[in-house]
Amino acid sequence: MPLPSSDRPLGVAVIGYAFMGKAHSQAWRNARAFFDTPAYEQKLLVGRDAEQAAAAAERYGWQESTTEWRDVLTRDDIDVVDICSPGYLHAEMAVAALDAGKHVLVEKPLANTVAEAEAMADAARRAGARGIRSMVGFNYRRVPALALARDLIAEGRLGTIRSVRSAYLQDWLADPGAPMTWRLDKETAGSGALGDIASHLVDQIHFLLQDRVTGVNGRLHTYISERPAAEAAGATGGLAAASVAEPAGEPAPMRRVTVDDAAWATLDLAGGAVASLEVSRVALGRKNSLQIEVFGDLGSLAFDLENLNELQFFDGSSPVSRQGFTRILATEPEHPYVSSWWPQGHVLGWEHSFVHEIADFLGCVRDGLAPSPSFADGLAVQRVLAAVEQSAAAKNILIPVDA
Amino acid sequence: MPLPSSDRPLGVAVIGYAFMGKAHSQAWRNARAFFDTPAYEQKLLVGRDAEQAAAAAERYGWQESTTEWRDVLTRDDIDVVDICSPGYLHAEMAVAALDAGKHVLVEKPLANTVAEAEAMADAARRAGARGIRSMVGFNYRRVPALALARDLIAEGRLGTIRSVRSAYLQDWLADPGAPMTWRLDKETAGSGALGDIASHLVDQIHFLLQDRVTGVNGRLHTYISERPAAEAAGATGGLAAASVAEPAGEPAPMRRVTVDDAAWATLDLAGGAVASLEVSRVALGRKNSLQIEVFGDLGSLAFDLENLNELQFFDGSSPVSRQGFTRILATEPEHPYVSSWWPQGHVLGWEHSFVHEIADFLGCVRDGLAPSPSFADGLAVQRVLAAVEQSAAAKNILIPVDA
Amino acid sequence: MPLPSSDRPLGVAVIGYAFMGKAHSQAWRNARAFFDTPAYEQKLLVGRDAEQAAAAAERYGWQESTTEWRDVLTRDDIDVVDICSPGYLHAEMAVAALDAGKHVLVEKPLANTVAEAEAMADAARRAGARGIRSMVGFNYRRVPALALARDLIAEGRLGTIRSVRSAYLQDWLADPGAPMTWRLDKETAGSGALGDIASHLVDQIHFLLQDRVTGVNGRLHTYISERPAAEAAGATGGLAAASVAEPAGEPAPMRRVTVDDAAWATLDLAGGAVASLEVSRVALGRKNSLQIEVFGDLGSLAFDLENLNELQFFDGSSPVSRQGFTRILATEPEHPYVSSWWPQGHVLGWEHSFVHEIADFLGCVRDGLAPSPSFADGLAVQRVLAAVEQSAAAKNILIPVDA
Amino acid sequence: MPLPSSDRPLGVAVIGYAFMGKAHSQAWRNARAFFDTPAYEQKLLVGRDAEQAAAAAERYGWQESTTEWRDVLTRDDIDVVDICSPGYLHAEMAVAALDAGKHVLVEKPLANTVAEAEAMADAARRAGARGIRSMVGFNYRRVPALALARDLIAEGRLGTIRSVRSAYLQDWLADPGAPMTWRLDKETAGSGALGDIASHLVDQIHFLLQDRVTGVNGRLHTYISERPAAEAAGATGGLAAASVAEPAGEPAPMRRVTVDDAAWATLDLAGGAVASLEVSRVALGRKNSLQIEVFGDLGSLAFDLENLNELQFFDGSSPVSRQGFTRILATEPEHPYVSSWWPQGHVLGWEHSFVHEIADFLGCVRDGLAPSPSFADGLAVQRVLAAVEQSAAAKNILIPVDA
Repeated sequence: MPLPSSDRPLGVAVIGYAFMGKAHSQAWRNARAFFDTPAYEQKLLVGRDAEQAAAAAERYGWQESTTEWRDVLTRDDIDVVDICSPGYLHAEMAVAALDAGKHVLVEKPLANTVAEAEAMADAARRAGARGIRSMVGFNYRRVPALALARDLIAEGRLGTIRSVRSAYLQDWLADPGAPMTWRLDKETAGSGALGDIASHLVDQIHFLLQDRVTGVNGRLHTYISERPAAEAAGATGGLAAASVAEPAGEPAPMRRVTVDDAAWATLDLAGGAVASLEVSRVALGRKNSLQIEVFGDLGSLAFDLENLNELQFFDGSSPVSRQGFTRILATEPEHPYVSSWWPQGHVLGWEHSFVHEIADFLGCVRDGLAPSPSFADGLAVQRVLAAVEQSAAAKNILIPVDA
Repeated sequence: MPLPSSDRPLGVAVIGYAFMGKAHSQAWRNARAFFDTPAYEQKLLVGRDAEQAAAAAERYGWQESTTEWRDVLTRDDIDVVDICSPGYLHAEMAVAALDAGKHVLVEKPLANTVAEAEAMADAARRAGARGIRSMVGFNYRRVPALALARDLIAEGRLGTIRSVRSAYLQDWLADPGAPMTWRLDKETAGSGALGDIASHLVDQIHFLLQDRVTGVNGRLHTYISERPAAEAAGATGGLAAASVAEPAGEPAPMRRVTVDDAAWATLDLAGGAVASLEVSRVALGRKNSLQIEVFGDLGSLAFDLENLNELQFFDGSSPVSRQGFTRILATEPEHPYVSSWWPQGHVLGWEHSFVHEIADFLGCVRDGLAPSPSFADGLAVQRVLAAVEQSAAAKNILIPVDA
Repeated sequence: MPLPSSDRPLGVAVIGYAFMGKAHSQAWRNARAFFDTPAYEQKLLVGRDAEQAAAAAERYGWQESTTEWRDVLTRDDIDVVDICSPGYLHAEMAVAALDAGKHVLVEKPLANTVAEAEAMADAARRAGARGIRSMVGFNYRRVPALALARDLIAEGRLGTIRSVRSAYLQDWLADPGAPMTWRLDKETAGSGALGDIASHLVDQIHFLLQDRVTGVNGRLHTYISERPAAEAAGATGGLAAASVAEPAGEPAPMRRVTVDDAAWATLDLAGGAVASLEVSRVALGRKNSLQIEVFGDLGSLAFDLENLNELQFFDGSSPVSRQGFTRILATEPEHPYVSSWWPQGHVLGWEHSFVHEIADFLGCVRDGLAPSPSFADGLAVQRVLAAVEQSAAAKNILIPVDA
Repeated sequence: MPLPSSDRPLGVAVIGYAFMGKAHSQAWRNARAFFDTPAYEQKLLVGRDAEQAAAAAERYGWQESTTEWRDVLTRDDIDVVDICSPGYLHAEMAVAALDAGKHVLVEKPLANTVAEAEAMADAARRAGARGIRSMVGFNYRRVPALALARDLIAEGRLGTIRSVRSAYLQDWLADPGAPMTWRLDKETAGSGALGDIASHLVDQIHFLLQDRVTGVNGRLHTYISERPAAEAAGATGGLAAASVAEPAGEPAPMRRVTVDDAAWATLDLAGGAVASLEVSRVALGRKNSLQIEVFGDLGSLAFDLENLNELQFFDGSSPVSRQGFTRILATEPEHPYVSSWWPQGHVLGWEHSFVHEIADFLGCVRDGLAPSPSFADGLAVQRVLAAVEQSAAAKNILIPVDA
């Protein structure tokens, strides 16, 4: 069941218009101009605030807007639902949409809990049997340099992978005066840096190594345990719980931060590799630095999202006197996704990964293929994150050191 | 006379659908989603090949297509003409469009000759008196890091500028087997690396220093003087002269390259600075590396387009022990153009400069302001390029060295 | 008791002539040419093999050589003993030398066990009361860029330190065919990457933050558990245990590696910071990459030993639009140690840190000051390493993840 | 006539004890410890000020000192003369020493004028016929990364060289208050940035390409045309003309700078390549940045002296998707000179190039080989510099640009 009907373009709805809604909308607006996608129309934008939703729809190219997310379930002209709401809403929306026969793309992380993620993966499995497609939005799989990294590893250019060193460092919460948001409340966000950005690292490790994590040792830390209340809930994409919205006041009342600012873990992989990860949203000076280094017995790779067009590749098979990390500017037509864009050296940006994600998702819908990463992949990430939380909560993890 | 009518959106036509036509179309499709522009519609795409033009219009979001560029002159619903044809067509098209009362954006370089550029600057002056706006597309002025560079210099953070060291290095012609194109024929392209990429450097020097070149010493070189004929003229954006189109054959007949592959110059500026430039399209390994270093008596700057989100700033006024080049990741809301896009650290790409260009141009049209860079700015660049050619042609420029 | 006698130069003996003996000898040969040191003479080199020791003494500028290390205890013309033997010999030699009234410099790590380190720290305390000086050779404290880092932190330029991210990555054991050495045998080396290179990281954390570790969570891993026997024990500096020397044979018999190739840990500091460390000797492509990032609430620092003249400093107090990591080329006269060397920009190498170490140690001997890092500092490192081993040995450290 | 006598070590004298005298002394003190050299002794240091010379000799390891440079001619125990005096003294000293049968090493540039350089090359030729060796100290030929660059080019890994882009940027004269020195007086220094640092670039171009310059187009510029007088002539290495020594006063009288601060040139090479060079001593923020990029039709190289252990190599013969500049950390035993030093990744500094220079020079003396670069090589550089001056003095070099 590739397409609901070959007679009309696919109808698409997006839920959310904040950061992720804006990014996904940009991708929907541009995917067809650069990639061969099935025909589709940007039908409907769903948001909590009617006026803002209407303005966003106008601005981002959606034909209509609504505040009723369940409209996407009942409207026959909606074939695809793209869910960009906060994580605590993912499960309900995604399961309902899949059960209603809609293809579903969900922003990462898949859910706030393993239980939710399991329910979603079940729904995806059921829906898949009926030809309904689902995908979780770990967009960095489709950064050309990281897709190239995956190819190099799959070709065996690194040999057996021994270790991965990864980090995702940001600093938007470095200032203790940065206000409370739904992302800092365990109820809405599930976790902090762990779910938000460590999830990307775990997915990348799965993706790059095509392996799975079997054991975890991890820690969490909250540096700034309370923050001034924010006035507006607008930052939630219009779908946040009322609990985080606050009336303006002076001085702002303080709200308790209930998630982690930073996390560390080592991960054992089934294939024998050991991966480390470190994430922080208070790493002053690092803006959006997802760093991954992969060390094999034949070669190595290094990547930093702040230089997202570059992949560093160390080829241990070349003569020693010429060895070194090669800075591959992944902007050649030979590199993944690039031939659709500009000539060599004309660098891409962060948002292009979403265009690739949408284009691939649409291609799978058209061709009856299972998109990747699947909800099952999203669940696998969730299980690792849960294990990190469990490890961090263990009492005996720290060995004391005498003064 | 800010707008032809406040009652309807501006109607836009683009001429050309190859590299630049595609890039400009992408910008038209997205400008309104990120910037506050007057309302506009992507009305018409003009191309030489009807079928390809129709396909491009469909793909890039234009309502209609035509092969008759003069349609843009006569249609009342066209208010803005965006000219992305090869350089030898710029003057005729732009003058006609301005005279017809259309706002005109022309891709760089403004023209192939000083005479053409003068005619265009004249037409722009005439049109400007009637409220008709014109602009030349030196898009790199609107890369955030370079706009920031401009601001830092204007604020006096570099003090008096002593020297500029600049280069634009590419390698798409490094392979002698790369085919002949209109860009390598003096008739169609005017010059080679000089007009294509040195023009960007000269404009940047004008822009950053807000100064003008008074004297020039330069050289040109063609490393590969003939190349295999290309079969298709499609690479010209559908508007190339027939002279460069060739029937396929084996082996391809060789065509004479009549433009430079590389150029070098030193430029004297009125304010006392000396600037050097070096450009090449055969600099193997450099993909799209526009490098600019500006040295003042209080500070310095360095930029490389291959890392276009970064500006290196040396602040000579800070304590010596903490001095050094600061890598400013120009992705903060405080940086030019960035607040319209994504949160800090979410890097932009090459194409975003065109979005900024279109948005600013539209803003000028709406607000009755003179866009920058003007056709007069484009003419100033042309005069410098012509002086480089004149210098390079002088017989006495080389001092012999004994063996 | 600053100097044993002001009437004659200090007599110096070094024990060992392999890698570290060569590096220390180079420092002894050059310290007086660049720094104001008390007069001294390179009297005696001690090595296991008489012929090699004699050749090394001749080459490295020592007046005599011997195979009897206890000669340094009894000779009245020896005032300073520099111990570069394998770690398992440190305690015996250092305690004896201190008790004999010799000033003692010991290569890092201080010892192979906490017990040995405690005995050494005790001996140093006793000797210190008599004016006898002792120091452990964590030479990286005297890389100018790291000494500058220390100064910036001490001046408060980073504010309160929140986290440290550190790594020491090498690849000289990446090849499974690399032979067994005393460094891979727990008997002689104590531990592997942990003691050899993680010790540097722990000392840097102590040094930079002027804080101490209170709790540890760590892991160890051995990727390559056996290696071909090496023929010669020469690589041990002439002082290795007989157990690692092997007769040549074909194929080489395999020997069991009894130490770690890699280690990971998180460290809690008394002041509230959390530090991570990762070390590996199989990180293909990383040659000698000691990386340290320190994140405070006002600023951050980053360093990589492969670019040892550079310190990256992020000043969070500068205007946002000009913030970024500043690459400080620590080669100005204003930077620590540099004024004794060359003009700005004339970069120093790895070995210079030893020259600084020797010069400072001699200065302390002359001036009656306590050198830093002390044996107590070396013991503090040892305790952290021991806690990492204890943590790594705990059974319950890994949380399993379901497939 | 390899050695004057095999019965005793070579006796060495150095003339000068300032910057270069210190650097050469450091090399003499260490060469034998790392390389297999013939036996030699640091006999004599020559300096203008007796007291300072004696102190320098003591500090730098020379047995004696004198203020009479002609002593080196007459003493039978002096076999090698190392000339580190200002350039205007090179010719007289070197010719006399060669004629007296001494092996001579002269700091770069060879001389202040072509005429002097010719006389020196003549003397070197005469002396060479008698087995007397001579060498000019372009030490950067022996930076391992640049020696590796030479090897890669010689092996054909770059194919045919098309262009070289080079610069040597410093900023020690960026401050207008930096005092007058002999280096800024045409009488003593010959020229400014041109002779001091452009000479290095010209020699590197000769060295790397093994080609010669046939034509030159160049420019010179002096940004700061007068500077405060310096009190002391000590900065001249003790051998400066009295004319630059000034009594202290307030405010310091201003002295006229008679040399260039900056220079630019394009150079035509016999083999068809075009090289550009740019040098400045007022390029604020660049400390000692000798940059060389070499572009061939098969590969490219890039180097920066501020990262002197690194060579960037672009291999155009590798698959496109894996192409890029490889950062070769030239610290492997397989790299030139490195096996004598430390294990991989333990970086070398600026001064090591002098150790290599001395070791190679001594090896040539022992083995009866002609050292490189020869005085003829130094003369070839001088001719290029003279042609740049001639070109810069031509009236017609600048083409005016209309406003």
